[in-house]
Amino acid sequence: MPSVFTKIINGDIPSYKIAEDENFYAFLDINPLKKGHTLVVPKMEEDYVFNLNDQTFQELMLFSKRVAKAMKETIPCLRIGVSIIGLEVPHAHVHLIPIDHINDMSFNRPKLVLDSEIMKEIQESISVNFR
Amino acid sequence: MPSVFTKIINGDIPSYKIAEDENFYAFLDINPLKKGHTLVVPKMEEDYVFNLNDQTFQELMLFSKRVAKAMKETIPCLRIGVSIIGLEVPHAHVHLIPIDHINDMSFNRPKLVLDSEIMKEIQESISVNFR
Repeated sequence: MPSVFTKIINGDIPSYKIAEDENFYAFLDINPLKKGHTLVVPKMEEDYVFNLNDQTFQELMLFSKRVAKAMKETIPCLRIGVSIIGLEVPHAHVHLIPIDHINDMSFNRPKLVLDSEIMKEIQESISVNFR
Repeated sequence: MPSVFTKIINGDIPSYKIAEDENFYAFLDINPLKKGHTLVVPKMEEDYVFNLNDQTFQELMLFSKRVAKAMKETIPCLRIGVSIIGLEVPHAHVHLIPIDHINDMSFNRPKLVLDSEIMKEIQESISVNFR
C-alpha cells in the first residue's frame, strides 16, 4: 500500500509542487503552520529519516537547502526553520517553515486554512525561485 | 565576541559533551525538552544554517545522524526528531530530541530541570554509543 506521499509523488493525489528531481519531491503542506510551509520527501519510501543511507540522507538535506533558499527569497520571514518529526505519515519528510518567532515551529498551534487560489499563488512564487 | 556555543566548544563554558570531531561538536541541551535532548553545532561560527556552504551543511547533517543513532540506541523513544530554528543563539545548531509524540517537539512547552548527576549519566550513556 503506497504512502500518501508516494501517491502525491505519482500524481494520484494532487499537490502544490514546489520542486522535483530524480530522487526528491517538494510540495506545499496543505495544513500549513505558516504561509509557504513546505514538505520535502525522498521518492524512496522509508519511514524513519535516519534509516536512509548516508548519501540519500545528505542529498535530501541538500535538496531541502535549495528549497529553503527559494522560500526565503519569496516569503517575508526571518529565516526558514527545519523540522523532522515523522510520527504523522510513515514516509520520511522534512518540514520547511518560514519563521519569525520560535513559536512558529510549534505543531500544536492551529493550522492555517488557505484557499486554493492563495496556495496556487504561493506555489508559483516559490517554485519560480527554485534553482 | 565569541558566541555562547564557541565558548562551549573552547571549554570556556562547561558542557556535557556527547561527541566531537574536527568540525562539529555535540552536547546536551541544559534546558532539555526531553531527557537526552542534544545540540549539534559546527565549530565555524555561522548564524543561519542555510548560509553554511553545501559541503559543511551536509557534513553537519551527517554528524547529526551519527549522534541521533547513538541517542536512539540509548534513550527509550520512538525516534529522534530534528529541529533547526536558530532564533535563540546566533550560531547555527541542530536540535536532536528523543520523541514519542509530536508535542515532544514543541518549544513552547516547559523545559525539564535535571540535576547534574542525571545529566552526567545521560552524557556517558549516549557518548559511549557514538560511532
